Amino acid sequence: MLNLKHVAINSFNENLAYVHRDCTAYRVDDITTLTKVEIHGGVKPVYAFLQVVEDTALVKPDELGLNTEAFKQINLPEGANISMTLAPQAQSLLSVKRKIAGNILNAGEYDAIVNDIASKRYSNMDIASFLVASGSFMTTSEVLALTEAMIGEDVIRWDNEEIVVDHHCFGGVPGNKTDIIITAIVAAYGLPMPKTAARSLTSCAGVADTFSVLAGVDMDEDKLKKLVKENRGAIVDYNSLPIASANKIIAGVERHLGLTQLQHLAASILAIKLAAGVTHLVIDIPAGPSARVKTTTEAMRLRKLIEYIGDMLSLGVDVHITDGREPIGNGIGAVLEARDVMKVLRNKEDAPEDLREKSLYLAGHVLEFDPQLRGGQGYFAAREILNSGRALEAMNKIIYAQGKAPQPQLGNLTRDIVSTQSGVVESINNERINKIGVLAGASQYPGAGLDLLKKVGDKVEQGETLYRIHSVNSTDFAFANSVVDGYTGYEINTKGTF
Amino acid sequence: MLNLKHVAINSFNENLAYVHRDCTAYRVDDITTLTKVEIHGGVKPVYAFLQVVEDTALVKPDELGLNTEAFKQINLPEGANISMTLAPQAQSLLSVKRKIAGNILNAGEYDAIVNDIASKRYSNMDIASFLVASGSFMTTSEVLALTEAMIGEDVIRWDNEEIVVDHHCFGGVPGNKTDIIITAIVAAYGLPMPKTAARSLTSCAGVADTFSVLAGVDMDEDKLKKLVKENRGAIVDYNSLPIASANKIIAGVERHLGLTQLQHLAASILAIKLAAGVTHLVIDIPAGPSARVKTTTEAMRLRKLIEYIGDMLSLGVDVHITDGREPIGNGIGAVLEARDVMKVLRNKEDAPEDLREKSLYLAGHVLEFDPQLRGGQGYFAAREILNSGRALEAMNKIIYAQGKAPQPQLGNLTRDIVSTQSGVVESINNERINKIGVLAGASQYPGAGLDLLKKVGDKVEQGETLYRIHSVNSTDFAFANSVVDGYTGYEINTKGTF
Repeated sequence: MLNLKHVAINSFNENLAYVHRDCTAYRVDDITTLTKVEIHGGVKPVYAFLQVVEDTALVKPDELGLNTEAFKQINLPEGANISMTLAPQAQSLLSVKRKIAGNILNAGEYDAIVNDIASKRYSNMDIASFLVASGSFMTTSEVLALTEAMIGEDVIRWDNEEIVVDHHCFGGVPGNKTDIIITAIVAAYGLPMPKTAARSLTSCAGVADTFSVLAGVDMDEDKLKKLVKENRGAIVDYNSLPIASANKIIAGVERHLGLTQLQHLAASILAIKLAAGVTHLVIDIPAGPSARVKTTTEAMRLRKLIEYIGDMLSLGVDVHITDGREPIGNGIGAVLEARDVMKVLRNKEDAPEDLREKSLYLAGHVLEFDPQLRGGQGYFAAREILNSGRALEAMNKIIYAQGKAPQPQLGNLTRDIVSTQSGVVESINNERINKIGVLAGASQYPGAGLDLLKKVGDKVEQGETLYRIHSVNSTDFAFANSVVDGYTGYEINTKGTF
Repeated sequence: MLNLKHVAINSFNENLAYVHRDCTAYRVDDITTLTKVEIHGGVKPVYAFLQVVEDTALVKPDELGLNTEAFKQINLPEGANISMTLAPQAQSLLSVKRKIAGNILNAGEYDAIVNDIASKRYSNMDIASFLVASGSFMTTSEVLALTEAMIGEDVIRWDNEEIVVDHHCFGGVPGNKTDIIITAIVAAYGLPMPKTAARSLTSCAGVADTFSVLAGVDMDEDKLKKLVKENRGAIVDYNSLPIASANKIIAGVERHLGLTQLQHLAASILAIKLAAGVTHLVIDIPAGPSARVKTTTEAMRLRKLIEYIGDMLSLGVDVHITDGREPIGNGIGAVLEARDVMKVLRNKEDAPEDLREKSLYLAGHVLEFDPQLRGGQGYFAAREILNSGRALEAMNKIIYAQGKAPQPQLGNLTRDIVSTQSGVVESINNERINKIGVLAGASQYPGAGLDLLKKVGDKVEQGETLYRIHSVNSTDFAFANSVVDGYTGYEINTKGTF
């Protein structure tokens, strides 16, 4: 037996256990490689990876230290008597090896893999292997099995609601923050919409990043239910809800690896929505040569996959393939995107028309989940709600209820990227624009990003500004500047034929 | 600027940097995911992953802590002034993503990947992704590029030797410790053989594990050169030599994942031999339904690959496909295998005949690298050296020179696995035998393992012992026992036709 010690180290999602080299209970000398242990004494065993300490100030020979993640999980006071055994290899890792070898796994295997990930029996290396191996090919049934497994045990129930709606976008198009506008319109209409959002994985800003410029996005299940009851809408970072825990761990590894695989993304989105108790979901798949989904063929395949999974798991899905050939709106990065969103909601004259129209189109389809609404009337209902100011009113209520945020400053290190030619903007490369925005600091600082002053089809004179880079610190600013000169992401047609 | 602190934590191959939540030099609040940093102040920047600490006893707000691995690498005293920046993403990770997407990488890309791994710019997750992605398919040119990259900068030179020989086995057949016998024969003959060996990755015992039962296996380059000069042979754990550093890091991840992919293994073996300055190499590929290489077709493909890489990198290779249908020798696990090896060298009557014959066959081919020796005479020369006792004499000199080890005890928790039928042993499943041995503790304790009393073709009576399990602790013993009853790994032919 050893005495529990909290070693106050935050390791970002991996449980670590610290034992002294001269541990009184275990022979540590034999341990020369990464070793998984099982710690007993709490309600359930806690899995952790062993680190060997040679300083009694950290842990004494009769102590077992746990990092913050593991200490929270074991939920015992310091000094509690605990013991440790070598963790037997998780059986489901054999399925991961089968997947690496190119096999098709069954639903039971996906269930076991996802459960073992949720209970932290996998190292980040194991998770990375699973993601790369399953990412290389999965059958439709496998994606269904993965989705079902990732829903998990904890599902939010909306006992007093007939239908619960949501909207989600597959991403890959910078600036595309229709979700916030849609939530305001749908809430004003009166359908319950608990919009589950996430922080950015590989983009300049996720919906949760952008909305957190306006209001708090972390809340527990009770608060979410209360807010949706009172305001009909809320925008929540799903990480703050006790759902889809395996997905959160997997997302951490995906973020680190910079991996986004479409089938995984589909499973992840659908699992989160089902765990959030959503019954009807509009999905936006932007397709374009520099978007995440490159072709309409690929988008159509993805649509069929989502429709199949939706049907099998009793989720009403309405999938829309949209124009993903250039960024949506002008701002890229949380503060600038929030500015665009509020311009649309306030019916400002300089509100980005593409963001407004796309939001109305998708909101209209969400509204049509209401059996009371006549088919084809969704768009007009949405437009009326936006134009009348009722959407803005709903948004203000939501912001107030979630706690108005102290709006962060826009980064004041700026540079205007000017056109070297006169002509018409022929194309804007999403991936390049996203990369420059990320380098400018957008994925880390809400105030960083790009402000696009020209969009596809706009006339531009030589020396006129195409877009403006905003950074909040000089390192990021230098990074972005060092890259942008190679290729701005804009193509200018100088021939006048478009 | 922060003050360097050594946080005496051993994390098994990953560099970790510890900063306090209230760090005076960096805003740590923004950090919510695994983050790679670059630490400046030493001769070269050191890469590490950030962990956030909330206890000033571990690190103070004006300190930057490094774990033992990173502290060794930065090579500065505690208190030294150091600074930290976010590490830009290693460019070569883009190549890893290209490999994940199914592309063929060029030699420059493999070089960059391997260099970045060696300088610890990759997380273990990144390495796992690379291994799984490249493991799914590589062209012959890619394996060549990977091999060449993994040789690294530090190559051992044998200035006074015309040829330097070695032998290596692809593994997958328990008990197969010909290497030690071959080294003794070759050394007695007089060819220089610095046998580079490794600890077990997924097996009961690697050559380094087994030989460390007899003598020390860790030495630096100078000592290795001195020993080979004096005794013509040495058996060294390559981890103790300053060569092939990327390979060591990769092997750590492979061990954790339990992955062994044949093309990776070929690249790894050949890179280590080339870095060790070997000029001529015999390779043993055991093939059999339960070996690592399942078919002779697969073995032949591997042979051609190795011959191609050998030719391109000026390494003389002589590849032999051998019978891998059952374990070689009787003992499995370091102590039992060392016993078999010494029985063969001592020409004991009960020495395992298969181990003896296979060692002579392969040693003969190593000897034939000597231009002085007439073709076809290698086997007879090897046999004469073994029978005359000169191999034993050479072995004793090598053991003495490397430092005789205090021989560990054979595990005294034993169980005899008996045959439930009378008949003839028809087959022994290598994978099953290896698994039972590993569960019995063989990969962790030299004294654990299996002693095979019957081999394929042996007659067996009902109730007679097939093999004996040895464990050194009761947990392992229970594990092995819980599994062995399901399937012993032996098939008995009761019909008398074989």
